[in-house]
Amino acid sequence: MARPTPSGHQSIRSQNLCIVLSEIHRHGRLSRAELTHNTGFNRSTIKVLVAQLEEMGLVSEYAPAARGTAGRPSPIVGPRTDGPYAVAVDVAVSHLTVAAVALGGRVLARHSIDLADLVAPQEIVAEVVAGVRVLADSIPGQSWLIGVGVSVPGTVRRHDSRILTAPNLHWADVDLIAMLGAAFGADIPIYLGNDANLGVVAEHLRGVARDVDDVAYLIARVGVGAGFLVDGGPLLGAHGLAGEIGHIVVQPGGPLCYCGNQGCFEQVVGERALFARAGRSGPTPAAGIEDVMRDADGGNVFAQTAIDDVCQWLAVGLASISHLVNPQLIVIGGSLSLLLNERQERLQLSLDALMARAPGEPARVCIGALGEDAPLLGAAELVFAGLLSDPLETASAHRSQTEVLGGLDAVPPQAPHGSGRRAAVGVARRLQ
Amino acid sequence: MARPTPSGHQSIRSQNLCIVLSEIHRHGRLSRAELTHNTGFNRSTIKVLVAQLEEMGLVSEYAPAARGTAGRPSPIVGPRTDGPYAVAVDVAVSHLTVAAVALGGRVLARHSIDLADLVAPQEIVAEVVAGVRVLADSIPGQSWLIGVGVSVPGTVRRHDSRILTAPNLHWADVDLIAMLGAAFGADIPIYLGNDANLGVVAEHLRGVARDVDDVAYLIARVGVGAGFLVDGGPLLGAHGLAGEIGHIVVQPGGPLCYCGNQGCFEQVVGERALFARAGRSGPTPAAGIEDVMRDADGGNVFAQTAIDDVCQWLAVGLASISHLVNPQLIVIGGSLSLLLNERQERLQLSLDALMARAPGEPARVCIGALGEDAPLLGAAELVFAGLLSDPLETASAHRSQTEVLGGLDAVPPQAPHGSGRRAAVGVARRLQ
Repeated sequence: MARPTPSGHQSIRSQNLCIVLSEIHRHGRLSRAELTHNTGFNRSTIKVLVAQLEEMGLVSEYAPAARGTAGRPSPIVGPRTDGPYAVAVDVAVSHLTVAAVALGGRVLARHSIDLADLVAPQEIVAEVVAGVRVLADSIPGQSWLIGVGVSVPGTVRRHDSRILTAPNLHWADVDLIAMLGAAFGADIPIYLGNDANLGVVAEHLRGVARDVDDVAYLIARVGVGAGFLVDGGPLLGAHGLAGEIGHIVVQPGGPLCYCGNQGCFEQVVGERALFARAGRSGPTPAAGIEDVMRDADGGNVFAQTAIDDVCQWLAVGLASISHLVNPQLIVIGGSLSLLLNERQERLQLSLDALMARAPGEPARVCIGALGEDAPLLGAAELVFAGLLSDPLETASAHRSQTEVLGGLDAVPPQAPHGSGRRAAVGVARRLQ
Repeated sequence: MARPTPSGHQSIRSQNLCIVLSEIHRHGRLSRAELTHNTGFNRSTIKVLVAQLEEMGLVSEYAPAARGTAGRPSPIVGPRTDGPYAVAVDVAVSHLTVAAVALGGRVLARHSIDLADLVAPQEIVAEVVAGVRVLADSIPGQSWLIGVGVSVPGTVRRHDSRILTAPNLHWADVDLIAMLGAAFGADIPIYLGNDANLGVVAEHLRGVARDVDDVAYLIARVGVGAGFLVDGGPLLGAHGLAGEIGHIVVQPGGPLCYCGNQGCFEQVVGERALFARAGRSGPTPAAGIEDVMRDADGGNVFAQTAIDDVCQWLAVGLASISHLVNPQLIVIGGSLSLLLNERQERLQLSLDALMARAPGEPARVCIGALGEDAPLLGAAELVFAGLLSDPLETASAHRSQTEVLGGLDAVPPQAPHGSGRRAAVGVARRLQ
């Protein structure tokens, strides 16, 4: 029963700061004139709000480069490079990336390692902590950590952010937030999301899906998953499990899947299906895909057929997405997008042909602009969402980076607890 | 860039009327005490608001039946039976239903006719007009028509409400709103929606999906479609075409579909697939399904196998919905729900088995409470949405029913125009 309540002066100020900071975060840097235009605030309001954000250590203003036109140039506003930052973590099946990401989405530093098969959650926690310590050298001393956002290739339950299952990691029912919380200490909020759900947020904010409000993002690596934006907001589903396209059956009687069914989408378009059909089993998947492509270019019929098959099955899956969710745009991310660089048009034609005489509208298909970084950048957005929704509150609660990193020396071997942490919540509409 | 604006007294009053009227509409009738409880308004505010709604001719108050407990009983508030009403129309492939629906969702009168094959849009318009004239006798003289809402078994484009295609009617690119507008006159708004999208709204408001915010509704008649609610709001998709599950390919190489593909969902679970497999071609589908069920009960192996096949393929489709959209509840509507009365548990077990070891959560499956009426009642909600969102404005613009029906004598053979009418917009969250 929402009713309008009289808003106090302070809460309007806070909302206005949120609007201006979100604009700066989205665009990276803007002139004050652009801020005035984009927000609808007048020039003096923008000046006051920017001054306050500057005072809070979030943004800085500087003179624009000379441009040779008449009139006084408008000052440029951008996020401080020694301001707040997020630690973003992308847990993939074959590798782990840890990055420090500043407001504006700029990656200050990153650290990646290959993962052995069957890595345990506790090892991931240790690697994240080690990664953050490596990154520390590259981060300006004044910067302050505001939270850790993690992308996982698994299902994240909506109400408590537990990982229900990450099949290709062989994880089930893992409270990674509690484990990371024990390592980082109670003052650093930890957020967790599904890789595809985070990828679509990042491509919408900074990639090919800018200004598109109905978007599907297909992440195709070892596992295959989808994330959806509907009217600009995340489609999470009742339990947060929407987008598990890897296990819709597209080929009854087809290859056996670990889920017990035959012909799951993941079994016909995932990396392993490609390698198996092409007669290869690449140990490091991204390299493996390039190998298959090279084989195909060299005339290897198995490799050529394998790529053709994957593309045709991809079209079948994209048709199902188009029919069920009717996105305007389907963004292909993950390592398999490498395959599509030269085959994007053919994939689009296959999709269009499948839907030519059916009710419904085939989505436009394109390759993500952020590449393998989309889930990583989406994970950072989980962290920034808190700051952007309430800059006054979040910024005043900051603590120094040194203090946090000092606490990382003692990583407990087991995660004892961790409730009370904020649940990952998807990124709210105001970001977009 | 939404910012809070100071709300004037009048607009708050209008919003409060909207809240109270929506509660009455949702529940049909409520005591003033229940209204106080449900809305959070205090007793004197409720008294004033109810008095205003009564003055506007929308609701009436009456004494409750004696209940034998202490204290003065709270007056009951309900919609006036001679107040505003909607004409709701359900265009199905085999029949047409026209109903007068009062606030509170009560069907005042209804009129159904069987449709011949290949009925043209213009014939539908003529039948709707004829139906409204038949209904007029059953409607209290003081009642006033506030709009016409139509459900169609086809795709309705979001931005202009044109019917892009209704394949089982063999319609393409039909502006039914313009055609009905020409018949009803410019003062009666016409709304249009897809049958499954309207069905899910009705089951959510008045059926089995009350209090469930993530719902899929599968309408299985001759055609098969789905409608989704996500976080309580409609999932329409970029062009309004979400939910076209009838054409996802579930059995590659299976029966040929009119869309050119083989093994579309509609071709393995639709009425025609059932009749063909069971060795029957029922002329009137609902009777036909009962015939197949009787055959199966009598030991006819073809009928038994046909039903088993349809149920198994249904489970495959419901698994795809669960994986992609993760609803809490899937409601089965349409004539095929007859099949499931005795097979609901088995369908649930099949779905659970398909998803037992996969990431994701099988939805709970149940049969709709509103039966074949769900799209009809959802179509009425398209009309009520306008009244509920702005009772003051809409109620003051009413005109008498006699006046409208008088204008129906002359139905033009061709619809000359019709732009400028309000587009169907799905039913907003405030209804739920």
